[in-house]
Amino acid sequence: MIRIGIVGATGYTGVELLRLLAPRADVEIAVVTSRELQGVPVHRHFPNLRGHLDIAFSAPDAAELGTCDVVFFATPHAVAMQSVKPLLDQGVRVIDLSADFRIKDIPLWEQWYKTPHTAADLVAEAVYGLPEVNRDAIKTARLIAVPGCYPTAIQLGFLPLLEEGLVDTQHLIADAKSGVSGAGRKAVEDFLLCEATESIKAYGITGHRHHPEICQGLQQATLDPVKLTFIPHLTPMVRGILATLYAPVKKGVSVSQPQLQSVFEARYAEEPFVDVLPPGLWPATRNVKGSNRCEIAVSYNVETNMIVVLAAEDNLVKGASGQAIQNMNLMFGLAETAGLQTVALLP
Amino acid sequence: MIRIGIVGATGYTGVELLRLLAPRADVEIAVVTSRELQGVPVHRHFPNLRGHLDIAFSAPDAAELGTCDVVFFATPHAVAMQSVKPLLDQGVRVIDLSADFRIKDIPLWEQWYKTPHTAADLVAEAVYGLPEVNRDAIKTARLIAVPGCYPTAIQLGFLPLLEEGLVDTQHLIADAKSGVSGAGRKAVEDFLLCEATESIKAYGITGHRHHPEICQGLQQATLDPVKLTFIPHLTPMVRGILATLYAPVKKGVSVSQPQLQSVFEARYAEEPFVDVLPPGLWPATRNVKGSNRCEIAVSYNVETNMIVVLAAEDNLVKGASGQAIQNMNLMFGLAETAGLQTVALLP
Amino acid sequence: MIRIGIVGATGYTGVELLRLLAPRADVEIAVVTSRELQGVPVHRHFPNLRGHLDIAFSAPDAAELGTCDVVFFATPHAVAMQSVKPLLDQGVRVIDLSADFRIKDIPLWEQWYKTPHTAADLVAEAVYGLPEVNRDAIKTARLIAVPGCYPTAIQLGFLPLLEEGLVDTQHLIADAKSGVSGAGRKAVEDFLLCEATESIKAYGITGHRHHPEICQGLQQATLDPVKLTFIPHLTPMVRGILATLYAPVKKGVSVSQPQLQSVFEARYAEEPFVDVLPPGLWPATRNVKGSNRCEIAVSYNVETNMIVVLAAEDNLVKGASGQAIQNMNLMFGLAETAGLQTVALLP
Amino acid sequence: MIRIGIVGATGYTGVELLRLLAPRADVEIAVVTSRELQGVPVHRHFPNLRGHLDIAFSAPDAAELGTCDVVFFATPHAVAMQSVKPLLDQGVRVIDLSADFRIKDIPLWEQWYKTPHTAADLVAEAVYGLPEVNRDAIKTARLIAVPGCYPTAIQLGFLPLLEEGLVDTQHLIADAKSGVSGAGRKAVEDFLLCEATESIKAYGITGHRHHPEICQGLQQATLDPVKLTFIPHLTPMVRGILATLYAPVKKGVSVSQPQLQSVFEARYAEEPFVDVLPPGLWPATRNVKGSNRCEIAVSYNVETNMIVVLAAEDNLVKGASGQAIQNMNLMFGLAETAGLQTVALLP
Repeated sequence: MIRIGIVGATGYTGVELLRLLAPRADVEIAVVTSRELQGVPVHRHFPNLRGHLDIAFSAPDAAELGTCDVVFFATPHAVAMQSVKPLLDQGVRVIDLSADFRIKDIPLWEQWYKTPHTAADLVAEAVYGLPEVNRDAIKTARLIAVPGCYPTAIQLGFLPLLEEGLVDTQHLIADAKSGVSGAGRKAVEDFLLCEATESIKAYGITGHRHHPEICQGLQQATLDPVKLTFIPHLTPMVRGILATLYAPVKKGVSVSQPQLQSVFEARYAEEPFVDVLPPGLWPATRNVKGSNRCEIAVSYNVETNMIVVLAAEDNLVKGASGQAIQNMNLMFGLAETAGLQTVALLP
Repeated sequence: MIRIGIVGATGYTGVELLRLLAPRADVEIAVVTSRELQGVPVHRHFPNLRGHLDIAFSAPDAAELGTCDVVFFATPHAVAMQSVKPLLDQGVRVIDLSADFRIKDIPLWEQWYKTPHTAADLVAEAVYGLPEVNRDAIKTARLIAVPGCYPTAIQLGFLPLLEEGLVDTQHLIADAKSGVSGAGRKAVEDFLLCEATESIKAYGITGHRHHPEICQGLQQATLDPVKLTFIPHLTPMVRGILATLYAPVKKGVSVSQPQLQSVFEARYAEEPFVDVLPPGLWPATRNVKGSNRCEIAVSYNVETNMIVVLAAEDNLVKGASGQAIQNMNLMFGLAETAGLQTVALLP
Repeated sequence: MIRIGIVGATGYTGVELLRLLAPRADVEIAVVTSRELQGVPVHRHFPNLRGHLDIAFSAPDAAELGTCDVVFFATPHAVAMQSVKPLLDQGVRVIDLSADFRIKDIPLWEQWYKTPHTAADLVAEAVYGLPEVNRDAIKTARLIAVPGCYPTAIQLGFLPLLEEGLVDTQHLIADAKSGVSGAGRKAVEDFLLCEATESIKAYGITGHRHHPEICQGLQQATLDPVKLTFIPHLTPMVRGILATLYAPVKKGVSVSQPQLQSVFEARYAEEPFVDVLPPGLWPATRNVKGSNRCEIAVSYNVETNMIVVLAAEDNLVKGASGQAIQNMNLMFGLAETAGLQTVALLP
Repeated sequence: MIRIGIVGATGYTGVELLRLLAPRADVEIAVVTSRELQGVPVHRHFPNLRGHLDIAFSAPDAAELGTCDVVFFATPHAVAMQSVKPLLDQGVRVIDLSADFRIKDIPLWEQWYKTPHTAADLVAEAVYGLPEVNRDAIKTARLIAVPGCYPTAIQLGFLPLLEEGLVDTQHLIADAKSGVSGAGRKAVEDFLLCEATESIKAYGITGHRHHPEICQGLQQATLDPVKLTFIPHLTPMVRGILATLYAPVKKGVSVSQPQLQSVFEARYAEEPFVDVLPPGLWPATRNVKGSNRCEIAVSYNVETNMIVVLAAEDNLVKGASGQAIQNMNLMFGLAETAGLQTVALLP
């Protein structure tokens, strides 16, 4: 029985961790913290948990968290970096869903998150928790930086092309569409139903915090210099990210549709949560709602010599909490898919 | 291992049965029929099942269905009544999600469904599959008529009041709001996104097929004559029914808010899927999306001497497929909650 | 050319006033106030007004507002009551969309709005701006209290029945469904897209501020004592209110469907914005989106002896800003329909 | 008074023509045809028109249509091409909202629309109704081919860049997101609310009918060979297209953000319906819902040397019926903006 703590579990990644963990017999949700809601039963805040979880929020307390085997941070950025060290020192393993340990280049992180980093040494140690890239390192890691939602879909979509050296890495484009839950459960005017429904818009056009994270991951897959145009879009739905990726074929390389299909199938043949669709099927976010599966398809157009990759995930599952649990499973020697085989809710 | 057949599994109750049954280790989905889609892998039609179910649709065949322990009918009305007999004769137990065996009064059924009933004897035998009323009879039944979606929420909400003789049964009102999935997966103009979203309307104002079913159930709970005004509404969402029930207090009876709370809590104390909310909490369909839980709250207004009950369910789960599986669990001596403890998807 | 001022025009009723007034040639939008946004062009806050309105928000200023012929208050409650007097004294006519002058019973108002009323004398003078009831008084009024969104639909639906003495006024029920824009443009968690979409719930079950307003209006139409159960519901859409009204036929009275149809048609024959649908048609909020039209239908059920009335309006138009302008038109001797004949946006 | 006929007005572009034309005093809607609905009042089919239009659908009849000054075709493809000639011969001017006369290359048209073209000579004569390109030709045209919804947004977004020779025309990418109304009012399973809501997906990945139309338009603006990757997406909303356009800067050319802003502002300075947003503002489809305005913004990224253009329109207005009416206004010497200055509905 693995004892679990969750810090800052009042938002959407928090409730998603609880939804996926509460039914499991092999883990115990021992501590769920929230400064504001301490003493309040968790199911009072998240009514979907009624009957599934009998625990109240407590104030974050290093000693109590220190009794856990693993602690998830579902906090805004700049929280985990100040709290992780004492836990690691007590032998607790930490899985951070925030951005604090994702970017290895500290000044770059500080530029985007506009605050000094207070745990640079831990950044060096932290393992970037994308199992499809870092599975072995994850198994033995003390500290995991769970990838962001956009970075997960975009890296999974681009990686096979970069690893095989098929594309012009200086002209990559990621046009990504996210549901509103990606903005979290903050009372912000822009995300009111009346503001966000029945409309689509791009945002972060002049720069988005996930851009350096994505580039870091892509650059590790190739010696060619990576340049990426990344435009995220706010889409009128709750869950889901669809990444539409454009990559021109590299000069001197020739590709074909069947070859690309094979490259993707081979790359992800052993991956339990990356589903390369057969020819003729295309991803849709509804197919993966509530599930840890990422659907991927690839298309090649001869006339334009352009490769288009489509990747769909649930931003709260494979893009956050599901992936975090996938990491936990690996760290504790459990079946990687344990607790993550829920079927997507359709319709 | 219980062998399961599903007839007509191309609609929303079909995919919901499969979503809930596919992950289970104690059942085997042996036959899934569809005349139109025979030979097509089920996950091709329902992409959420990719990786969870490796079976193709087959044409309905009595012999093959006869090898099952239990067969679910997820068909339009007037199909099951023509197919059930040979299955029962082979010892197969049948759980019908359609309306064919719900109404005991055959002429009344024929009036509403506008076709002669061809299996009147089986109607007499069939057990109405509302476990909160008929649990014991369900356990030994050969043939279950699973209640309709509206009737489930409305009966669960009214029953404690009628059983206790607290209300004027001749002036009951059920104002019910359903998501669009209640209309099924039919290519009908009215249910296009552009027609049904961002709008609410009543329908069936001069009569709805679920009205006699609800009245039959309510009448069994009281000797007083039941008269019910039932107005269903098409609500711009996929899943969920919220029933707002109005019942004037019976002449000569006096009630109080704490008393009503106790009546409801006592009535459903042992029910795993009826959740009487504590005072101050109110049902919302989002709290039960994808779950078999039905949330109920009761409110009494002294000035108007009116009782208002609110009941929320997922129309595809407790209102259809989840309830069907709850019946199956009872029929086969399994834990009543087996496979039905999924946490609602929130947000 | 009528000079118009709008106080507090940063919310949804504000932008709706501007949408309807900006294209008109017979009015001039002279002052639009907002303390927070002073100096900001109005179209910067409301991009739909780009090209239609070249004015910036200004700080509320009695002198500047005093140059207007009419001032609309689109403010939260308890603002207008503190600002109206000096305007009236300068000869400005005032149309208040807030609740400050709707309820004649001051202690009742204070009980619901939890603050002392500071302009009781003006409450006595104010005309309740429901043209279908108070048209003549509106024409000469200095101060209009525009009805609330729920009260408009519910009164228009019940009035013919009460005026004709057809129903048991002690057992009236109004089950009303409102889009989320009724909650205004406040950054409140409950109204985030991820919280409010794909779900329906009742609220205000133990009491809602519109209840006394509705009762006051209904009581004026009958000598019988009115008792009303009113349950509002938050519906996952932006605009629209559908009121489903239940009224038992009065003891000793007998009614028929054709008679009720005639009663409603006769009552509203001359009303430009109340549309009694012909038999067989039923209201839907999508039919009136963006329009000042209120659709009404009536149904009688012999078996239960119950009358059901359905009324649909756009809560921001006939339920707020459109009605406010209808009042203005009457006050200034313009065509009552001026600027209000926009066709609903469908789909 | 211009006499107007509309052929095939039962779909979404039909009702949108009627919404925009019905309130006008300078036109008369004389004939509205539908084979299926002949004799049915138009407002019975489109309840938003109640009180605005008192005419019934009639069967298409060349003689009756021949009495009109102008006839709009809001029909599926391959209808107008068989009906236009006799109308033109009677002196009627024709505005076709379908694809029949958009593509000058007949074999290319036939390849995409999979039927022989029966009016090739009229294709040669037809004027492509994009006023921002062909204003003068439109004024005197007998026959207008109204641009498709995607082509309008995408051409308006790319044209300034191509006309100025700033970009590498062989690597253009258009990632476009459309509301579901773009699919029309057909009872097709994919567009049911339960299928299309709360999900986003790409479609037409291997080819879409609007691709040749867009390329034809773009090619006319440049001598460089145009190659375009075009990926449309089905977005869970009713109205709106957002086109996110990517264009690498041409080799040897250098650009800057202020320069691009100027290029766009200059290009559209005199255009009443193309709104180049000031720096810092970005398009959203909600800003133009129900309006003929197209919002455009341009962004340049130095690091990637990539230009991103965003264009938002209402697919049913500037992308179809509004643009059709803009053409009519030009053809008949009316103010180009007549009847098209409705403010977008927000929220």
